[in-house]
Amino acid sequence: MKAVQYTKVGNPPELREVDKPTPGPGEILLRVTASGLCHSDEVVMSYSAEQYPYPLPMTLGHEPAGVVEELGAGVTGVQIGDSVIVYGCWGCGVCRMCADGSENLCLTGMVSPGLGRDGAMAEFMLVDDVRHLVPIGDLDPVKAASLTDAALTPYQAIKKVLPKLVGGSSAVVIGAGGLGHVAIQLLRVLTPTRVIALDLGEEKLAFAAEMGAHEVLESKPEAADRIKESTDGRGADVVFDFVGIDATGDLALACVGVGGSVVLVGAGGGSARVSLLTAPYDAQVSTSLWGRRKELLELVDMAHRGEVSIQTVTYPLDDAVRAYSDLHEGKIRGRAVIVP
Amino acid sequence: MKAVQYTKVGNPPELREVDKPTPGPGEILLRVTASGLCHSDEVVMSYSAEQYPYPLPMTLGHEPAGVVEELGAGVTGVQIGDSVIVYGCWGCGVCRMCADGSENLCLTGMVSPGLGRDGAMAEFMLVDDVRHLVPIGDLDPVKAASLTDAALTPYQAIKKVLPKLVGGSSAVVIGAGGLGHVAIQLLRVLTPTRVIALDLGEEKLAFAAEMGAHEVLESKPEAADRIKESTDGRGADVVFDFVGIDATGDLALACVGVGGSVVLVGAGGGSARVSLLTAPYDAQVSTSLWGRRKELLELVDMAHRGEVSIQTVTYPLDDAVRAYSDLHEGKIRGRAVIVP
Amino acid sequence: MKAVQYTKVGNPPELREVDKPTPGPGEILLRVTASGLCHSDEVVMSYSAEQYPYPLPMTLGHEPAGVVEELGAGVTGVQIGDSVIVYGCWGCGVCRMCADGSENLCLTGMVSPGLGRDGAMAEFMLVDDVRHLVPIGDLDPVKAASLTDAALTPYQAIKKVLPKLVGGSSAVVIGAGGLGHVAIQLLRVLTPTRVIALDLGEEKLAFAAEMGAHEVLESKPEAADRIKESTDGRGADVVFDFVGIDATGDLALACVGVGGSVVLVGAGGGSARVSLLTAPYDAQVSTSLWGRRKELLELVDMAHRGEVSIQTVTYPLDDAVRAYSDLHEGKIRGRAVIVP
Amino acid sequence: MKAVQYTKVGNPPELREVDKPTPGPGEILLRVTASGLCHSDEVVMSYSAEQYPYPLPMTLGHEPAGVVEELGAGVTGVQIGDSVIVYGCWGCGVCRMCADGSENLCLTGMVSPGLGRDGAMAEFMLVDDVRHLVPIGDLDPVKAASLTDAALTPYQAIKKVLPKLVGGSSAVVIGAGGLGHVAIQLLRVLTPTRVIALDLGEEKLAFAAEMGAHEVLESKPEAADRIKESTDGRGADVVFDFVGIDATGDLALACVGVGGSVVLVGAGGGSARVSLLTAPYDAQVSTSLWGRRKELLELVDMAHRGEVSIQTVTYPLDDAVRAYSDLHEGKIRGRAVIVP
Repeated sequence: MKAVQYTKVGNPPELREVDKPTPGPGEILLRVTASGLCHSDEVVMSYSAEQYPYPLPMTLGHEPAGVVEELGAGVTGVQIGDSVIVYGCWGCGVCRMCADGSENLCLTGMVSPGLGRDGAMAEFMLVDDVRHLVPIGDLDPVKAASLTDAALTPYQAIKKVLPKLVGGSSAVVIGAGGLGHVAIQLLRVLTPTRVIALDLGEEKLAFAAEMGAHEVLESKPEAADRIKESTDGRGADVVFDFVGIDATGDLALACVGVGGSVVLVGAGGGSARVSLLTAPYDAQVSTSLWGRRKELLELVDMAHRGEVSIQTVTYPLDDAVRAYSDLHEGKIRGRAVIVP
Repeated sequence: MKAVQYTKVGNPPELREVDKPTPGPGEILLRVTASGLCHSDEVVMSYSAEQYPYPLPMTLGHEPAGVVEELGAGVTGVQIGDSVIVYGCWGCGVCRMCADGSENLCLTGMVSPGLGRDGAMAEFMLVDDVRHLVPIGDLDPVKAASLTDAALTPYQAIKKVLPKLVGGSSAVVIGAGGLGHVAIQLLRVLTPTRVIALDLGEEKLAFAAEMGAHEVLESKPEAADRIKESTDGRGADVVFDFVGIDATGDLALACVGVGGSVVLVGAGGGSARVSLLTAPYDAQVSTSLWGRRKELLELVDMAHRGEVSIQTVTYPLDDAVRAYSDLHEGKIRGRAVIVP
Repeated sequence: MKAVQYTKVGNPPELREVDKPTPGPGEILLRVTASGLCHSDEVVMSYSAEQYPYPLPMTLGHEPAGVVEELGAGVTGVQIGDSVIVYGCWGCGVCRMCADGSENLCLTGMVSPGLGRDGAMAEFMLVDDVRHLVPIGDLDPVKAASLTDAALTPYQAIKKVLPKLVGGSSAVVIGAGGLGHVAIQLLRVLTPTRVIALDLGEEKLAFAAEMGAHEVLESKPEAADRIKESTDGRGADVVFDFVGIDATGDLALACVGVGGSVVLVGAGGGSARVSLLTAPYDAQVSTSLWGRRKELLELVDMAHRGEVSIQTVTYPLDDAVRAYSDLHEGKIRGRAVIVP
Repeated sequence: MKAVQYTKVGNPPELREVDKPTPGPGEILLRVTASGLCHSDEVVMSYSAEQYPYPLPMTLGHEPAGVVEELGAGVTGVQIGDSVIVYGCWGCGVCRMCADGSENLCLTGMVSPGLGRDGAMAEFMLVDDVRHLVPIGDLDPVKAASLTDAALTPYQAIKKVLPKLVGGSSAVVIGAGGLGHVAIQLLRVLTPTRVIALDLGEEKLAFAAEMGAHEVLESKPEAADRIKESTDGRGADVVFDFVGIDATGDLALACVGVGGSVVLVGAGGGSARVSLLTAPYDAQVSTSLWGRRKELLELVDMAHRGEVSIQTVTYPLDDAVRAYSDLHEGKIRGRAVIVP
């Protein structure tokens, strides 16, 4: 079968012919119907050989949708032909984080398809356990694939701070890209908060407004003053940083108000510096990684109700390498999805 | 092998000779080292044939401790010879409650050893999945077995209301039996709350005091007045009802203060009647069933630290039927445990 | 000045001529601009002389809007001419509930205008402390007056259970009257939940649908089956009971799912019977009384944003007695408001 | 009367003769019985004239205990002769933080005795409002005075993260001084957590152990490795930083585990740098300032129960200047308290 693989650190991903896998006991084989592309693939592929943590070659793609093709020995609870998406945080299932339903925080280190095991940019893929399959019924797999990360990640980030997003509140979204554009939609559906989106350039800001932002601003230090103004001097109740560089960390702390929260989602290599004397009193800064399986079930319910709609640009499997290049150049409006 | 089984609705449990089971794929065979006895076995055995929900004959015992004897195909993460206890809420693993780490609330209906499948009152038992084993290292299995229910159930009940058990608070424990005596200990370790225990008779009250209750009172309507007095008129912050009859439901609501909580744990067949006009303002009444797997991991940590110690009375497997009879007659001080 | 007073237990309220009050130290005199009518006035006026708790005669009206007319000695932080509404839970300010911002749960017993002190159904009224005034700027006082109770009460009820109203959730509102119709609106704005409203008669159900309910059902026992169906068998995540009779308490527990919440708001004289064996596992039943001052500030922000709009029917002060009679006969669609 | 005042930026505090104040409307005059000394006085007195925010001269002392001497017009709810301590966060009472019971986060900027208004290092002091008095009955005022800050500040810090301090958890306290030694005590009473205290020098570590720390370690980078070891590699669930320099911020993030919290209490001028890639996943870093009034009420209850005992060194009012110098030189074991 065809698969898009990362073969050697420093090389671009390649479209290759590989063996179709066979499901072992407890495993499930999917015929892939869609596979979302993510910035984090790029982050990982930018690592040096010393830093790079996974065995190679490895098929990319950690936002899978597929149809159940074959069941390994002992698998129950799913039928051949079922349309599913795949929860990508494959934890040990046993540690206290997994026991708590937080496989994304597995204490023994989760492994994910496309990030440690062969992923979804192929005609077929293996899933390790039936609990990681989420049935999607008649949802369009192209739209549903990216629920597994591009929607799940902002959804968890928002749920962490939901008690602050009450009547009269304001939230800032820094970065209206693949995850941020979903964050804007989700904030509008999940909360009554006033959404202020920050990004660079008219096109991005117009996109953010289209996604539902009440106000859009250039992502510059001056934005903090404007936000203080439009919140009666209180500052934002929550700031989501989907970029994660030093400049956005500083900006996030400049925008947030007393008792407010900053959620760091972007892995841009910078940090937010927190102290009693420089941050607003009682400020909270937290990092947020991917999401919980239960949250993905909730998102699928929301998708069935039409409450979340990921903006997608599709590419055939043969063009996956070009898709990565478009992503790198900032050409994607929403999320790129590979359709085998 | 020998097993204590419930064979026919209405009959007492019997000691029988049955086949030693063999682990299928994913299953684990334990050599049983201890098996706690629980009132809920009695509740279930009091059901009529119409109400009784499980296939018979069935080996009793849902508080198992054992040593890993044999692994079914594909089992990893545990070694033969490991000393373990068994988390008894065997959920589907897939529904949103299981995905949230709450197998005790499994939406498809959990099955438990001794409550639907063969349990621990036998020389050997099967466990369905490695995630339900909790290693206990060098803990005494006789002391550790009842962590799985007699400690886990009050632990979850307490964790539900932990934010109310702050400095200066008071908690009432109604019923100082198998679960209640552990609740008293746990409240003392987990919180700064003042513990008031209610039960009937001097012996029970002396036992409650020995377990750490600051004050003990006869479980009568007058107790509510005394509790109001000793809390400056505020009433208790939390009341735990381990009995669950109408009289204790009424008493619980009479003891609790404005903004307080009542947690119903006992399955005595009665109820608490809640209304805006008769309950204290902002009162919360909740039911609590068994506990979460993560909570059992926390309890095992506490047992290693010597912070929880279940009072046990042991019986050999051959005397299990007598143990049930002693339990029925209220002769057990703490928890009865069968040692095969 | 003119005032609508309750003068003698058992008599209907009367329009009377009384002295215009003078503000003492710390007090504020308002010229009343609007005064909402509430079912709870009726409940209190149905009490016997033995039960009736307040000194008489007493001016009615606990949903006040007004303009600051005169300041008592030492009052700062408000200007003559300011347009305000009045938070009606006048606690002691000192006890631990007041210290926590929950004057509605004041341990020494709150006193309210119209419920213990002279209220807003008059040309002028006194407010005890500047902290109980909430400025409304250019909001219409007729629309804003009932924010203080008809919106605040459901808003608090919803906030208590907000963590359960996540993506894919369902909420049931029993009773779409003065408070319930606002609850429906608030649920739509504050959460992504699917709202199912229960009431009696086509007219009420049409009103509930107009307010934003996704589904409306006759408030009968059969509704529970329909709700189970439309929630994939899970039951509702939350049920709000704005009626509070035995039948609605039973219905609420029949509709709610495992791990769900019932919030009892209505003071209809009935109760909900909660037990481990008959309620869904891990169910929570709580009572909710009025709301916190901070929550009223949040609601005023929401009103400025146009997110909540109380449906009002206005009456002149001279017709207040007729307004009570229309309320009693169920003729009011939304909230009746007296305009002096 | 005598008062210890800060008179000019850069000068040491002086003992001076000033007029005894007279209570205005709503104010209360206390005869001071004790006044705690705090590092934050030093921080403020180290500011340059440009940074210094308060009018001068100003009497120092924001941890007051006293006896009610005289009531201003309109004051009710307190009697002459009552023994009280003073909650030092004097907020506006009206903003949404004050409305929420968080005067310590007052949006208009709180004013405190000794930090903006005349404080407790004098024979008499004024309190602005009866709600800021907390009766202490027969508690020793010397022991009780520092409840208002030295205990309240760590108490709030602990309450913020209480849900993480469950069975089997571990907490690190960096800095076992005036606040840290109370934090250790409070953690032992309020939670089952294992307490690891970090400070410099044998004497400080012996003091921490005496206060209840299970383990004490030199506050150096290597401590993080030891903490990882003693927590089975998981890291601490919570780290409290009572120092607040860059080195302790780094150390805190090195000690904390996945899903853990760092609470920054010390105002040492440094910061903690948080990012998705360098902090543990799902880490939370928050600042914590002083505490809520309700929390002080809870602490007074705990003091009555003998559950918290601040270690004090007393000085007469005439020696207050020497007390500040001893504090500066690190000579105080626990908390210095001035007794007029």
